[in-house]
Amino acid sequence: MSRFFSQKYNHLEAYTPGEQPKDMQYVKLNTNESPFPPSEKALKYAAQAAERLQLYCDPDCTVLTREFCKLYGLEKDEVLFTNGSDDALNFAFMAFCDDDHPAAFPDITYGFYPVFAALNRVPYTEIPLKEDFTINVDDYCGINKTVFIANPNAPTGIPLSLSDIEKILKTNPDNVVIVDEAYVDFGTDSAVGLIHTYDNLLVTQTFSKSRSLAGGRLGMAMGNRSLIQDLNTIKYSTNPYNVNSMTQAAGVGTILDDDYAKKNCATIAENRAYLTAELEKLGFVHTPSTANFVFAKHPELDGGGLYAALKERGVLIRHFTKERIKDYNRITVGTKEQIDILLKTIREIMEETA
Amino acid sequence: MSRFFSQKYNHLEAYTPGEQPKDMQYVKLNTNESPFPPSEKALKYAAQAAERLQLYCDPDCTVLTREFCKLYGLEKDEVLFTNGSDDALNFAFMAFCDDDHPAAFPDITYGFYPVFAALNRVPYTEIPLKEDFTINVDDYCGINKTVFIANPNAPTGIPLSLSDIEKILKTNPDNVVIVDEAYVDFGTDSAVGLIHTYDNLLVTQTFSKSRSLAGGRLGMAMGNRSLIQDLNTIKYSTNPYNVNSMTQAAGVGTILDDDYAKKNCATIAENRAYLTAELEKLGFVHTPSTANFVFAKHPELDGGGLYAALKERGVLIRHFTKERIKDYNRITVGTKEQIDILLKTIREIMEETA
Repeated sequence: MSRFFSQKYNHLEAYTPGEQPKDMQYVKLNTNESPFPPSEKALKYAAQAAERLQLYCDPDCTVLTREFCKLYGLEKDEVLFTNGSDDALNFAFMAFCDDDHPAAFPDITYGFYPVFAALNRVPYTEIPLKEDFTINVDDYCGINKTVFIANPNAPTGIPLSLSDIEKILKTNPDNVVIVDEAYVDFGTDSAVGLIHTYDNLLVTQTFSKSRSLAGGRLGMAMGNRSLIQDLNTIKYSTNPYNVNSMTQAAGVGTILDDDYAKKNCATIAENRAYLTAELEKLGFVHTPSTANFVFAKHPELDGGGLYAALKERGVLIRHFTKERIKDYNRITVGTKEQIDILLKTIREIMEETA
Repeated sequence: MSRFFSQKYNHLEAYTPGEQPKDMQYVKLNTNESPFPPSEKALKYAAQAAERLQLYCDPDCTVLTREFCKLYGLEKDEVLFTNGSDDALNFAFMAFCDDDHPAAFPDITYGFYPVFAALNRVPYTEIPLKEDFTINVDDYCGINKTVFIANPNAPTGIPLSLSDIEKILKTNPDNVVIVDEAYVDFGTDSAVGLIHTYDNLLVTQTFSKSRSLAGGRLGMAMGNRSLIQDLNTIKYSTNPYNVNSMTQAAGVGTILDDDYAKKNCATIAENRAYLTAELEKLGFVHTPSTANFVFAKHPELDGGGLYAALKERGVLIRHFTKERIKDYNRITVGTKEQIDILLKTIREIMEETA
């Protein structure tokens, strides 16, 4: 820290992204990336956009918005595109949280929420999940706080029903409820259809996972036009050009090739079933995930130890040191081949330590 | 504004980017873009990166940083890459300004500074430029404020000498001085060489103009490692993946093809001389610009009127309504062909209104 750094960030602890080691080629199952390459159409459109990079990108993402709204049945002022959904979530913390509207989210969830809250100097409450890592919906009813719910939750993958989300929306009419649907496309019901019913609902999603664009940085927020207008005020006061031309074009490509994304999501759901069944055979227990990852622990294996042993053998998964979940590991659902390497390596480790 | 929008942004007025009308094909001289396409190497590298978009981009921009530091003679922890230099400037307002370190900048300068200050709720002072639009350096000496100086300044294009910048640095030892060098490559001395001498100097630059990557969004901040570390704390608490893979790769391409950028900058400097000489023949007066734009007014033409008449005829330039500069227009230095169309159209307008 320099002697010039503003005192207001004295206690700010930055987010730690999943590791991206460059020392060797890993079977990479640690950051919930898609194992499938982007759509050919995305590549073609991005390359065309690159040829005009001397010109600023369209801050309104006009073409992307039009194609997206056609597919999702939304009006153009009901969506805002951002530099990944992190950007949208940060905007939501800025726009809808303050001393009078503190934030609330589960104790076990996406690790960036407390960082966004600290960055924006917003008071926040971490509400403990139940013993089985599910949300107790009553804990969120009538709390008069700006609620952030990852659905399905991370790193557990456990979904919340739309009727439960409606309960939270109805009982907090004077606060925005943000439903973070980063992993929705792998088998969870989306709340987007409710944005016309609840003026306090904001839904965020991303092209990173189901559309294979993690490296392109494309996310979006959806809600009624007043909420989107507020986020636009923040965007145009921060960085109007936050989504570059190539990514806007790649996004259009994935929308026009929606069947490819759907097919990949179906494959991930199949592979998830395979992975969980095989892990069960090895004695693992896991949460009921509807995401593109599995959250699992073995009664006889140390969570951090398994992570380290796998990494040593060239397989990366993600371990969190937080007390409640330190026995678990989060494993991205990869291709069948990646899963088989993972399983084989786990078997080897179990044999060696037996 | 929704009823949920935080009161803290009650008075926030967002920045208005230069217009990007889509109703017809314009000769576009309004947003200081390069008239030259990006380097072929940039296109090639971006296309290669696109093929791996399913993977997250490298939050540390490792390869880009390495190649950039080789070219600029910097250490890797003395530079931070951002989503355009606006991102870096916003980070600087966040990190180095607060109630105890208010911001100061000229009354006529980049219009985003007051927006960043308002967004971050930082008190700021706008210091009037002299009558001839130059900076009175004494106004900035010993003011104990976080100083933002665009060098060359916008929209005037007038540069400040390094000795003047050193006076500001020396007399404000307890505040960061941010030198915004967005337009430095077209004929202004850069302050980057001073970062090892002054621990309170932060320099921002962009790949948007001289490297023809406006649509790619790539900027950077350079300073001693403690300042860069502070900005990294902000970045990793906001959006660690703020520079996507394709843009990182395109940036590397432009660095490896540095002669192309240098040649384009030389052409722009020649064209600037041509444009100003021709404008003078038509009776215009202009500030002494070292940027890729010219700031000019005609004693007999209304600034807003000329802008509108040109737009009607398919030529876009930028007009600002601010009282002190409303007689002027900012004209991007394009290709010789674009300049000739502009001049011909101005002549037509002058004949019609004579």
